[in-house]
Amino acid sequence: MKKSIAIKEALSEKNVGKTVSIRGWVHRERGSNKFKFFVIRDVSGTIQAIVKSEDKKLFKIAEDATRESSVIVSGKIRKDKRAPTGYELQVTDLEIVGKAETFPISRDKSEEFLLDVRHLWVRSRKLTNVFKIRSTVVGAIHEYFRKNEFIETQVPILTPTACEGGSSLFKVDYFGDTVYLTQSWQLYSEALAASLEKLYTIAPSFRAEKSRTPRHLTEYWHAEMEVIYCDLPQLMKYGEELVSYVCQEVARKNTDELKELGQDPRELKKIKAPFPKITYKEALDILAKNGMKVKYGKDLRTLEERELMKHFERPVFVTNYPKEIMAFYKPEDPENPGTALCFDLIVPEVGELIGGSVRDLDVDAMKKVLTDEGEDLSTYEWYFDTRKYGAVPHAGFGLGVERLVMWICGLEHIRDAIPFPRTINRKAP
Amino acid sequence: MKKSIAIKEALSEKNVGKTVSIRGWVHRERGSNKFKFFVIRDVSGTIQAIVKSEDKKLFKIAEDATRESSVIVSGKIRKDKRAPTGYELQVTDLEIVGKAETFPISRDKSEEFLLDVRHLWVRSRKLTNVFKIRSTVVGAIHEYFRKNEFIETQVPILTPTACEGGSSLFKVDYFGDTVYLTQSWQLYSEALAASLEKLYTIAPSFRAEKSRTPRHLTEYWHAEMEVIYCDLPQLMKYGEELVSYVCQEVARKNTDELKELGQDPRELKKIKAPFPKITYKEALDILAKNGMKVKYGKDLRTLEERELMKHFERPVFVTNYPKEIMAFYKPEDPENPGTALCFDLIVPEVGELIGGSVRDLDVDAMKKVLTDEGEDLSTYEWYFDTRKYGAVPHAGFGLGVERLVMWICGLEHIRDAIPFPRTINRKAP
Repeated sequence: MKKSIAIKEALSEKNVGKTVSIRGWVHRERGSNKFKFFVIRDVSGTIQAIVKSEDKKLFKIAEDATRESSVIVSGKIRKDKRAPTGYELQVTDLEIVGKAETFPISRDKSEEFLLDVRHLWVRSRKLTNVFKIRSTVVGAIHEYFRKNEFIETQVPILTPTACEGGSSLFKVDYFGDTVYLTQSWQLYSEALAASLEKLYTIAPSFRAEKSRTPRHLTEYWHAEMEVIYCDLPQLMKYGEELVSYVCQEVARKNTDELKELGQDPRELKKIKAPFPKITYKEALDILAKNGMKVKYGKDLRTLEERELMKHFERPVFVTNYPKEIMAFYKPEDPENPGTALCFDLIVPEVGELIGGSVRDLDVDAMKKVLTDEGEDLSTYEWYFDTRKYGAVPHAGFGLGVERLVMWICGLEHIRDAIPFPRTINRKAP
Repeated sequence: MKKSIAIKEALSEKNVGKTVSIRGWVHRERGSNKFKFFVIRDVSGTIQAIVKSEDKKLFKIAEDATRESSVIVSGKIRKDKRAPTGYELQVTDLEIVGKAETFPISRDKSEEFLLDVRHLWVRSRKLTNVFKIRSTVVGAIHEYFRKNEFIETQVPILTPTACEGGSSLFKVDYFGDTVYLTQSWQLYSEALAASLEKLYTIAPSFRAEKSRTPRHLTEYWHAEMEVIYCDLPQLMKYGEELVSYVCQEVARKNTDELKELGQDPRELKKIKAPFPKITYKEALDILAKNGMKVKYGKDLRTLEERELMKHFERPVFVTNYPKEIMAFYKPEDPENPGTALCFDLIVPEVGELIGGSVRDLDVDAMKKVLTDEGEDLSTYEWYFDTRKYGAVPHAGFGLGVERLVMWICGLEHIRDAIPFPRTINRKAP
């Protein structure tokens, strides 16, 4: 097999006049009886390749190179301003590795059709670029936590306990018994915090919600952390540093991919901690001044989060939501009675990116909330043990990986932030 | 709050005579009416702390510091050969942050009981050390793949298609329909390979097997990779380099944890690529010579894998298993008819650590195997599309993360390689 180079590497001044070999797929093709023009793609980029009819044998092979056929192409690199990526490959050798049947995806296809053939649509430049950025995002999350001496760990996906309320749980048949798909690692991470102290995970979470919004998936990846002896300001500091770090890394490593997606890397570079911090009450005041009346005690909806963002145009922390609409493990703020020691980090266009809180240490207070919500306390007994045996103050948050990718890539729908999205009406391929 | 330091940091010559503050839990305590001895633990280590009865107020607090209470302790560091970790803390200040009720775990508890209170048993030195090594293992897997320019990606946990045969799938109720928990990312990764070329994941996989062996979990973490234009020798090279890299990283970063677990870091350092490579046929010959007759065409069982390892005492590749006992996507080796282009990497004590293969490109051959196995071909149509539209030679493997942790830590049972194990009879806490 000839030594081939990445297309991105081929697109270089230093290769002009030289013969290179690339491996890829036919992204586009057109031609006449004199020329065949191809755009060849690989993971790194695209290049225009031209085959002239003078070489009859080569031209005949070229006529067989249908769209999405896999090919190995050799030729001379020529600078050409008209070529989409600035250089052109004058083909001297062409091998079809796998000839493609007529590719089913063309320009006029519907979103539904593209989801039906997602296994082929993942080859699109758009999705390839998103997935490369997604890899940087996930890698940067790992790096941030590890640089800060967090220990990575994994907790069960199959769980007997609900964390965020039982109504939106997927049921699994476990050798005749019922277990649920996890919604958050939190209950387990709190138990592990007495061993590992500063810990994080990146793992799938599941919500059987009937939401049909552009920002909900039933299966998504969740970056979660938990830290002992941590208060709300310190927790938010971790949150804003993490988001800043990811943005800087993507801006640095994925300039080309961002540009191909129509995003400006310079804008991403501006995302730097600290982020503004307002209370839920202050958020309501801002909304009210702009004609959007939200009753105190109602959670903020996407609509309202988006309106709020118009006044910041960068991530903003909203703290101290009303205690009574918060999950049982979020404690009351002693300095702001009636509100919880919690935050949401809201980002433009997407809404909630991170949710975090201090964790309540008061078992009686938690039991009261759970009882009021009709929960079965017996399934939480093991969790309450974490308070009975050497409790320490602790706090943690969870970040939706796809929402971060969606925001950074400027996607309209969260489904494009993950290779094979799962939504209420999409479970295949 | 006083500035505290990690116990491991406190255990140092340079702190002798100095006053330090540590935060941790009471790991052990004993005493008389003259002294109270504590062993305090945190994530980094343990230290002996002594409280003398002269300071009546302090002694009274010390008497309240039950096992597993969380404490903040200040005092002077003194070198003491009799102390388990070489230094002793002469306590001058002691704060009980959370007083523990009588801790339910004592020495004489059964394995079953320890699994019942796993949420507390995770605090044991053994498990803390294992989880710290596990974090290094997972981090090193990420590093190895990223250094080699693999793109990290994630594929669905909820899937309509079986990958390794339908009998051992967990069923999930998906808004009234049935989907399954994934057993491998492979079918999806092959579709993504036409976009991302070199890709990997670390994600949970599920097997609803009724195995009650010390090396099976129903939920485990799976490091999987897929690469285009890759043949079997190159694939094995990735496998042995990956395992070597992880072993070197653990030996370098977790010397203390390995020693506490009774493992010799020097032995781990010896694990270096390349590993020996034998065929399945050669493996049978070795077994036969040692009185273990395996009929050609039978898969190797744990028993046999262990016997085999006695002749190597390090990881060994077994290649070219009989084609007819292999999964449908493993192609026949044209140079060794009747055998598949595949390998298992076997490690001492644990058995199969990695399974990998070249992927068949011949749709008709794959359909025949699936039909013979009684599978519904229609659920595989999308997968066959990957061959119809620009197929390229490709290969990949999957590594069981818990098996690697089990082997490195010298664990007797795989359940201790993961914080909250799931087995046929263990689904809580």
